[in-house]
Amino acid sequence: MKDSLIAHINKFVSLDEAEADKVCASVNLTTLKKKQLILEPGEICRANYFVSKGCIRLYFINRNGQEQITQFGIENWWITDYWSWETSQPSNYYIQAIEDSELISINKKTYEELLLQLPKVERYFRIILQKTHAATMRRLEYFRDQTDEERYHHFITLFPGFVQRIPQYMLASYLGFTPQFLSKIRGKKE
Amino acid sequence: MKDSLIAHINKFVSLDEAEADKVCASVNLTTLKKKQLILEPGEICRANYFVSKGCIRLYFINRNGQEQITQFGIENWWITDYWSWETSQPSNYYIQAIEDSELISINKKTYEELLLQLPKVERYFRIILQKTHAATMRRLEYFRDQTDEERYHHFITLFPGFVQRIPQYMLASYLGFTPQFLSKIRGKKE
Repeated sequence: MKDSLIAHINKFVSLDEAEADKVCASVNLTTLKKKQLILEPGEICRANYFVSKGCIRLYFINRNGQEQITQFGIENWWITDYWSWETSQPSNYYIQAIEDSELISINKKTYEELLLQLPKVERYFRIILQKTHAATMRRLEYFRDQTDEERYHHFITLFPGFVQRIPQYMLASYLGFTPQFLSKIRGKKE
Repeated sequence: MKDSLIAHINKFVSLDEAEADKVCASVNLTTLKKKQLILEPGEICRANYFVSKGCIRLYFINRNGQEQITQFGIENWWITDYWSWETSQPSNYYIQAIEDSELISINKKTYEELLLQLPKVERYFRIILQKTHAATMRRLEYFRDQTDEERYHHFITLFPGFVQRIPQYMLASYLGFTPQFLSKIRGKKE
């Protein structure tokens, strides 16, 4: 299971065997059943999670009691509440499995130590963070310029396979509109 | 002028003199007059900009012809269109000086070479990107959960000095509401 992480790191840098062993010794495996939570509001998010198999989501409950999904994580994505992880302040978020999932987690303290020891892994995370940040900035732009319908069509064009894996109400929450609106633009009733 | 960048890097890692010299040799100095642009839509954003002095903004024009400010940069902040920089696709953004400003820029190719040569600088950018991404995720959360008025009061509490430096219509654009609404919540007419 840790092989998937090593393979992902090796897309960006080349770990030798000793380095790969060190990475494997620094991470933990977690298996989650569908709907199981690994983070809840009030907890400090102390790990970053790499999805080896399955699908998870990061969300909070807004003042109106609605779920607001900020991020999905599927195979080969890292997911965490970066703000809580960075500041060690309690999180406002839930992280929950949408499918039965296998995660590889790294504790923040271990992560900091590992990055000091292995500059290649530091490089890997710099590249990943840069790509993640670029994608988030792009998303912020879409939220401020696309209509709801455009945002939906754009998303399903970019991620057609992914759309099949998640409940429609979660897709609506992620894209920032109601499930009713989503039903309408998909041209069918729920 | 390059000293400000070296001082900022040294807050996170410790460069020796040769390393600092190498960083200084890899960056360029740019002086901008107020309102001067360094990026326009259609151009590929090929540099990342560190604000040594002054204040700049990253914005796009939405379909209604309104400026949408995505980010401000003041002293010790890096600012770029990360999506264009990352993908080498044409940008949708403007980067413009709000005040007379001094920038330290690094070209993408030079940046990649420098980070390969100096793991400490790789580490510095990993840390900066992590902090930047955490702040952006937090901002995305505020956009989806706070009222306009709450977002305004929260922002001026976090950045009281900065609010004095920028025109009110830019603050309104950044926070996602109209200048008229901002006037109203500030309790005065414009």
